[in-house]
Amino acid sequence: MTSEFDLIRQYFSRPTRHTDLAGGDDAALLRPTEGHQLVIAADMLVEGRHFLVDADAESLGWKSLAVNVSDIAAMAATPRWALLSLALPEVDADWLKAFATGFYACADAFGVDLVGGDTTRGTRNLSVTICGEVPTGAAARRDGARVGDDLWVSGQPGRAVLALWHLRDALPLDAGHRDACLQAMHLPQPRVSLGAGLRGIASAMLDVSDGLLGDLGHMLDASEVGAEVFADALPLATLIDACGDPARAQRACLSGGDDYELLFSAPPAKRSMLRALSESLDLPLHRIGAIVPTADGLTLRDAAGGKQGIARRGFDHFAADT
Amino acid sequence: MTSEFDLIRQYFSRPTRHTDLAGGDDAALLRPTEGHQLVIAADMLVEGRHFLVDADAESLGWKSLAVNVSDIAAMAATPRWALLSLALPEVDADWLKAFATGFYACADAFGVDLVGGDTTRGTRNLSVTICGEVPTGAAARRDGARVGDDLWVSGQPGRAVLALWHLRDALPLDAGHRDACLQAMHLPQPRVSLGAGLRGIASAMLDVSDGLLGDLGHMLDASEVGAEVFADALPLATLIDACGDPARAQRACLSGGDDYELLFSAPPAKRSMLRALSESLDLPLHRIGAIVPTADGLTLRDAAGGKQGIARRGFDHFAADT
Repeated sequence: MTSEFDLIRQYFSRPTRHTDLAGGDDAALLRPTEGHQLVIAADMLVEGRHFLVDADAESLGWKSLAVNVSDIAAMAATPRWALLSLALPEVDADWLKAFATGFYACADAFGVDLVGGDTTRGTRNLSVTICGEVPTGAAARRDGARVGDDLWVSGQPGRAVLALWHLRDALPLDAGHRDACLQAMHLPQPRVSLGAGLRGIASAMLDVSDGLLGDLGHMLDASEVGAEVFADALPLATLIDACGDPARAQRACLSGGDDYELLFSAPPAKRSMLRALSESLDLPLHRIGAIVPTADGLTLRDAAGGKQGIARRGFDHFAADT
Repeated sequence: MTSEFDLIRQYFSRPTRHTDLAGGDDAALLRPTEGHQLVIAADMLVEGRHFLVDADAESLGWKSLAVNVSDIAAMAATPRWALLSLALPEVDADWLKAFATGFYACADAFGVDLVGGDTTRGTRNLSVTICGEVPTGAAARRDGARVGDDLWVSGQPGRAVLALWHLRDALPLDAGHRDACLQAMHLPQPRVSLGAGLRGIASAMLDVSDGLLGDLGHMLDASEVGAEVFADALPLATLIDACGDPARAQRACLSGGDDYELLFSAPPAKRSMLRALSESLDLPLHRIGAIVPTADGLTLRDAAGGKQGIARRGFDHFAADT
């Protein structure tokens, strides 16, 4: 008996490119590349928490895969395969078509084969597993930051939370900034080329999903080091231009989440390689701080050289009010 | 900021045995065995659909992994790694402890490392991804059944649906049968040793999750063949003893799902190997039919040799009334 939910799979049955067997059997068959480690992660997105009930389905399709691809990028690995499990309250062909369009756009952009998953009726829940590969030993972990390393962040963290504040009527934005911030929120660009380019350069790395300071805290804990963040090196100009308030812009940059930029440490000897990588990818890389001994904790250094200790505040999907 | 939901991960942080890096980073790092394919599948279990709101948490922990392990067994592969994503309405320490106990009991029984996943607040949803390995080319797929092959099923399909009927007050069971049927429903035993033992023997295989006829239909469609099922070869004695009704017992065996026995085809030349395998595993294997040309469809042959065409009816979690 074919249920209407079996029909959902039709929307997710496009041909694969580097998979031995995908879909339609008990499991998929993949052939890992010799000399590589497999890199695997899963994310669960829940309606009302990670996305709104009326969220655009195509953007949601993109984002549900993009946030997973970002986890692979943050390991300096190459994304290869994904599984998608969907709980849906009903079969809505228009919604499914749009969701699949966004999901496959992201899959195509980053060379990912959709190889399996599950569908069921239930409260809307998008559960994605992503698999990637990295040459054995070349993954960038969180625990490799060393005292004396520089601290870097890519692109423009902070725009997604400006969009969130805007949607909550807590921040007016003009049309140009609104579109850019909404795009950062809805269609995040996982930094796959950057991540792979940082093999052998970054000593520690993660993606900024919980907010720059929150994620930096994870790196410091894992590496058993502290950090000094340079306030005047943060990429604030665009954020200030958007929200008109330097303090708010700094807060967006440091504590806003959901941007999926890469935050990494690297020895100072790598600065020229990083400048070259930034140019070749046409992607700004900002040297925003330095790794210090753990006893020095986490501090923010202002332009005048003054330091203030800062709490590690992040973006938390589970907190009562985020 | 550590949220209460971060604390959930503490329940799922036991040491791994064959994993390079698990948990606490953007992704886990695994080292696939050379010369093997990776076998990967995902299942999503939703409260009120796949399990009841008051389901025993320890059994649920076992079952959420066991049904995934069964998918790996059905490919003749060896389970190795799992990821667990949980949406939970609240942090309930007792529930989590019991769920983790059941989950790890299954993981330990089948050599699975829990390497990652996600947790979030939401309607209860258990999403598991399972990874296994199989020597390249040795996986048992659904599409390999050939005309003339025997059709086999392991163990005792039908008990889980007797338990379901019992719980719905539609079937009285005495204490002994009730316990056995509830155990089949709540603590299914994935046939991992059997699956691996069937490499090079089974021409096609899948696990009985949707009901024997429903899953047989998947095999026939994929293999482009038909099948004749021998009514008098079905393992009905225990079911008849339990429910006291031969017709109902046959319906449980053929259309009940959720048992996770293995259904497979194999050439007649393999019968003696199968008898030896059955003995070595102390697990009954029943030769219940034969693969026939697709034009002959799917028929049930009774003891007198009469044949009736049968609809492919299965167990469907999405149907209005299952």
